[in-house]
Amino acid sequence: MTYSQAVLNGDRLALARLLTQVENNTPEGRAALIELFPHTGKAHLIGVTGAPGTGKSTLVNQLALLYRKAEDRRVAIVAVDPSSPFTGGAVLGDRVRMRDLSGDPDVFIRSMATRGSLGGLAQSTANMVQVFDAAGFDVIIIETVGAGQSEVDIARLAHTTLVVEAPGLGDDIQAIKAGILEIADILVINKADRSGVENTEKALKSMLELAHPTERVFRHHGSIMPAVAPKQDSSTPLMWVPPIQKTISIESKGIVELAEAIARHVTHLRQGGGWAVRERARLEVELEALIREALWNQFHEKVPQEQYESVLEKVVQRSVSPWEAVKELLKGRFK
Amino acid sequence: MTYSQAVLNGDRLALARLLTQVENNTPEGRAALIELFPHTGKAHLIGVTGAPGTGKSTLVNQLALLYRKAEDRRVAIVAVDPSSPFTGGAVLGDRVRMRDLSGDPDVFIRSMATRGSLGGLAQSTANMVQVFDAAGFDVIIIETVGAGQSEVDIARLAHTTLVVEAPGLGDDIQAIKAGILEIADILVINKADRSGVENTEKALKSMLELAHPTERVFRHHGSIMPAVAPKQDSSTPLMWVPPIQKTISIESKGIVELAEAIARHVTHLRQGGGWAVRERARLEVELEALIREALWNQFHEKVPQEQYESVLEKVVQRSVSPWEAVKELLKGRFK
Repeated sequence: MTYSQAVLNGDRLALARLLTQVENNTPEGRAALIELFPHTGKAHLIGVTGAPGTGKSTLVNQLALLYRKAEDRRVAIVAVDPSSPFTGGAVLGDRVRMRDLSGDPDVFIRSMATRGSLGGLAQSTANMVQVFDAAGFDVIIIETVGAGQSEVDIARLAHTTLVVEAPGLGDDIQAIKAGILEIADILVINKADRSGVENTEKALKSMLELAHPTERVFRHHGSIMPAVAPKQDSSTPLMWVPPIQKTISIESKGIVELAEAIARHVTHLRQGGGWAVRERARLEVELEALIREALWNQFHEKVPQEQYESVLEKVVQRSVSPWEAVKELLKGRFK
Repeated sequence: MTYSQAVLNGDRLALARLLTQVENNTPEGRAALIELFPHTGKAHLIGVTGAPGTGKSTLVNQLALLYRKAEDRRVAIVAVDPSSPFTGGAVLGDRVRMRDLSGDPDVFIRSMATRGSLGGLAQSTANMVQVFDAAGFDVIIIETVGAGQSEVDIARLAHTTLVVEAPGLGDDIQAIKAGILEIADILVINKADRSGVENTEKALKSMLELAHPTERVFRHHGSIMPAVAPKQDSSTPLMWVPPIQKTISIESKGIVELAEAIARHVTHLRQGGGWAVRERARLEVELEALIREALWNQFHEKVPQEQYESVLEKVVQRSVSPWEAVKELLKGRFK
């Protein structure tokens, strides 16, 4: 039996092995991805990002526990941590998690600790997600550690993106930047028992008002909701103002409300056509990345190494600029 | 007179305008880069990275002031901050800086706040650096905000990479990860008057010992130096164990010692051949990025949009996997 058949049959060991094959980009892994692809497209992908120290991992664990206990949904977690296993960050995280979630065959946690090219990391994450999707996990949570642009880019490809904040992380530490706010479908203030929570909330609210200037917003059950239902026409999807959810994840507080906000977002996406838009956008990003990689591989196969080295040497000697070098190397090569 | 001639003549206004052209990737900007390229390769590139909250910007300012006052070197700073200008982070940073360094024609500070594709950001940074290099700046400091992998990748392309830490930033906030340690030529503990500095130093030292297990290291004038001069042979460059430098940058403390460590690293690179190795590696990364971009542009020009859309649609419908789609799109296209 092939990997993909075993995975489709619910074989957990085969799943674990396939994930490793996929992460290592082996021929078996690639073959299985192609076989599994028709079985994808069913899971709800939730991205979780935010600055270090906001308690993302605990939050993700609590959410997974809730989905298991209250809704009996199968949950996979892909924790993307590009730091080396040297310090054991990702591995330690797994062990802490296993205490809460271990023994449950319908939870699967996988850390992506592989360093290397970022394109590679994004691609590996996408591939892992496809395996979990085909394997029948209903919810796939993609958690990215770190607040770098690339980590954010990975999280934002989900259907629903949570940006996690925490009070008192200092001035310039804030992920409260428009760049991150823009990708948030739901804002979470975790560690909401800490002092400074009012300031964090106030800052987020004023930024939301700046970002959504056409709507009057007011607080409503811990969320920001538009004061008036936004007008709709066939060309614009339903308006969605990111709600602010307060949680204290180590005490399991606010998790039910967070799950409700996530469910509302799913309904919003389904009704407004946003779900299909995001699916398409995500697959287009994946396709583009694969094309770029294939083009580079073709280039490397076809251009003799000596020619490449000799052109590079001219650049190093400053006798040819990199732009002229590219022109020389690619002249008439693409049909 | 062209931009590049004006810049080579030391015209500061032309420099500012050209940097904008380059950042916006205009035809004028690209033409100037080609003309300026033969004049590059002289500057010392210093990368500065580390987690938010470590005080990188103040440290960079102090270092720039020292290079101006004590060594009369022309200094350019490229601050890479992929956050949107919405919150004014980068802009505010510039203004604070201008107070110390303004009015000095031999200092130039430029923030790269452009968001967008990361390849784009890395490429824009590389182009800015080339303009400053050709314009005769002796030292170019590339400061990256945020501790994401891509930001680190940008900083590591310098000749000398500083990784900045600070005590008391909490557990998982630490950039003390092997991934970042590996790229450090010099480790800086900034805010060294804070409590917890001994712990930070101890942690860094033990990680350095793990990373350099063949050497016994001991503290020496605030730096970690090998206890015995490492053996050399013609195939291995001189060993360099990253020194740990303590600074309190808002009080200008430790900056002279930091500059001395940087100077030692330059000597090490020059004597051991490392300078040429890094120059070549950096230009190869730039060349590869340009080739990848050119390949993608060629692909887009040659493949009809309808064909691309129709293949994407099949992927969205799950009737063709992304890998099969790539094969179909690229079949026989590259000579």
